[in-house]
Amino acid sequence: MYGEIITIGNELTSGRTRDLNAWYAAGRLTESGLKVIRITSVGDDRAKVSEALAAALAASRFVIITGGLGSTDDDLTCQIAAKAFARPLCLDERMFNAIKAYVELRGKSMTPSLEKMAWMPEGSRIINPRAGVCGFSMTEKGVHLYFLPGVPEQMRYLMEKFVLPEIVSRYNELPLLRQKTIKVFGINEPAIAEMVKKLRGKTGEALLGFYPQFPENHIAITLRGNDESLLLSELKRIEKAIEDLLGPCAFARDSEMMEDVTGRILAEKSLTISVAESCTGGLIGHRITSVPGSSAYFLGGVIAYSNKVKTLLLGVSEETLATFGAVSGQTAAQMAKGARELMQSDIGLAVTGIAGPEGGTDEKPVGTVHIGLSARDNTYCGMYRFSGGREQIRTSTATMALDWIRRYLNGYPFLPGL
Amino acid sequence: MYGEIITIGNELTSGRTRDLNAWYAAGRLTESGLKVIRITSVGDDRAKVSEALAAALAASRFVIITGGLGSTDDDLTCQIAAKAFARPLCLDERMFNAIKAYVELRGKSMTPSLEKMAWMPEGSRIINPRAGVCGFSMTEKGVHLYFLPGVPEQMRYLMEKFVLPEIVSRYNELPLLRQKTIKVFGINEPAIAEMVKKLRGKTGEALLGFYPQFPENHIAITLRGNDESLLLSELKRIEKAIEDLLGPCAFARDSEMMEDVTGRILAEKSLTISVAESCTGGLIGHRITSVPGSSAYFLGGVIAYSNKVKTLLLGVSEETLATFGAVSGQTAAQMAKGARELMQSDIGLAVTGIAGPEGGTDEKPVGTVHIGLSARDNTYCGMYRFSGGREQIRTSTATMALDWIRRYLNGYPFLPGL
Repeated sequence: MYGEIITIGNELTSGRTRDLNAWYAAGRLTESGLKVIRITSVGDDRAKVSEALAAALAASRFVIITGGLGSTDDDLTCQIAAKAFARPLCLDERMFNAIKAYVELRGKSMTPSLEKMAWMPEGSRIINPRAGVCGFSMTEKGVHLYFLPGVPEQMRYLMEKFVLPEIVSRYNELPLLRQKTIKVFGINEPAIAEMVKKLRGKTGEALLGFYPQFPENHIAITLRGNDESLLLSELKRIEKAIEDLLGPCAFARDSEMMEDVTGRILAEKSLTISVAESCTGGLIGHRITSVPGSSAYFLGGVIAYSNKVKTLLLGVSEETLATFGAVSGQTAAQMAKGARELMQSDIGLAVTGIAGPEGGTDEKPVGTVHIGLSARDNTYCGMYRFSGGREQIRTSTATMALDWIRRYLNGYPFLPGL
Repeated sequence: MYGEIITIGNELTSGRTRDLNAWYAAGRLTESGLKVIRITSVGDDRAKVSEALAAALAASRFVIITGGLGSTDDDLTCQIAAKAFARPLCLDERMFNAIKAYVELRGKSMTPSLEKMAWMPEGSRIINPRAGVCGFSMTEKGVHLYFLPGVPEQMRYLMEKFVLPEIVSRYNELPLLRQKTIKVFGINEPAIAEMVKKLRGKTGEALLGFYPQFPENHIAITLRGNDESLLLSELKRIEKAIEDLLGPCAFARDSEMMEDVTGRILAEKSLTISVAESCTGGLIGHRITSVPGSSAYFLGGVIAYSNKVKTLLLGVSEETLATFGAVSGQTAAQMAKGARELMQSDIGLAVTGIAGPEGGTDEKPVGTVHIGLSARDNTYCGMYRFSGGREQIRTSTATMALDWIRRYLNGYPFLPGL
């Protein structure tokens, strides 16, 4: 059940094109319970393609090869495969007739380059023998090779319709594969690794993977087996064990984002929110409104970049600004309260900080950020010091601010600041 | 000057993550005049990583390896490289101290997993020996190997700052290479290609590359030669020829972004701006403030997501909303004027539109966006219809709005809408 993917094309090795075919095939094969052990991209180069095919024959049970099947001079895959496996190229009549019918229907006539597409290595089986979208497969030394076009839409069509079903049925003794991703904010990767070590012996056959995605960390749990319901209950057990360790820092599962989670809770509780942003300049609003339907709970915001806007719109007092400065807990609190009252929302959320690269002082270095949250009953504020460049500080600030909403609504304590 | 790229991580072979590192490294190496012969992705698997390293040693002069350098248990690259090349792992004191200082500054202490990151194969040279972002390189059988982190931002930083310059200087029998990127907004790729065809015969030895970067298109001019001053004057000549063809649609060069350009002009003219955003939810403010020093010209904004905020803060009249709707030129114009007056800026910029996926009608389908710009002398508005999903529509809207500022300040006509 081990397989690999070979993608062919100068556009891949020169970085002109992103290799969507390899990514797609790897994802679909993995989801189908198969294991991809290697992805190799080579240019339109006889020696390198042959080498990749030879390496694949030695290591894999099946190989998906994409690219180089067209009619132009640099489309060499058929010839290379024929040579590598010492099979003569034979004219496939069914394919020849299909191409001929296709071009004649369009008032064109057969050319040598089109005819070339009907010459296949001996013993090949054509996949979808129609002009336009087709590939071919062969078995060599017990390894199943699938040659598909490089055009992503065509490749995907043939994968879904012919190749995946064939591979899956061929390996139907295969175990099932189930995955779950837990997203974490507020604990760094080494600390998570230390924590999860404690689970050793309790995670059974599960594979745990760590994927930092600044400023979050993602933990992927992967399980393989034969029994679907057993897999799912085992997955649930491990998920719970990890979440118990991480506590409220585990904020979402799978594809859910922080803004989805906060939005969901706001919608469930029928509460509305407004924001007042200084250093993030609109990023929090942008993230909240990236969720379709966010107008149900998000009323709007004030980007209070200048002090004038802080006083004029949000009612931050001149005295507060003069005494404590624009980057202070007092200002954050007044901004949050100001936003809430101005836009008549249930909750007001505010951030003010120094994103750099300039503007830091000894007392308030770059990365100093204050967050304020004002609800009808109370106003909260906290200070953090984020590291990284300007955009990283702004991203950390936005995620932390969204996390404040989540924690406030769930009754969790805010992450400790300074 | 032949090299290859090896990317390591289960997230790549399982298709969970697109391999942006391989794509990026391949593109940058090619642009720098080097040839990438193969890209191999393998999982966090000792045997497969060793095999890939051995194959690379046999075929390439340099190898870029990314991934597996973190502190968790599945980060095995150092150990695999040590074993593959029979080099013991040694504690690098400089690295150890850098990590120690980094964590202590944050009030944490050293852990075994962090210490692991300071153990490198004997004879390695550390690239950027700071905690946070570093890699290492070594020379084995005359092949230069560069081990970089898998986090794209970190990988790109180290590539640009250390690895590319080193590789390029190592192969200094290479001719000089000079590049210029022209960024274009408002003309699509096929139309640019047609335009540039007209230049045939006038671009000498230059290579022209096209890189769509939604919603912009980038044209890269690459020149190679021996004489620096000749190269630069030739580059300038071709740059000018292309810009003459593209007119005001060519908005920036090299790493400059639309927000840098608009910011620069605002600063030069000592003008201030404020924004009123509906469908973009804060994205325009976020982009304007991504430029360090933007507080010199950006006063703030109103995220007017709900109609209540549009009337309450920006003074959009109830009648306008009832007669023309929130997504209308009239509303955009009133929002722009409202923002300008409220925040006392020279210019007010507003957007209102339907980003989808819901909310479209026959008359105003998803993607309908109105932009308004209010200056002391006049107020302008225009309607566009953008395609794509929610985030693409929001991105197009923000770029178009920023382009309006640039065109207004430069006296260019706005891009034609509907």
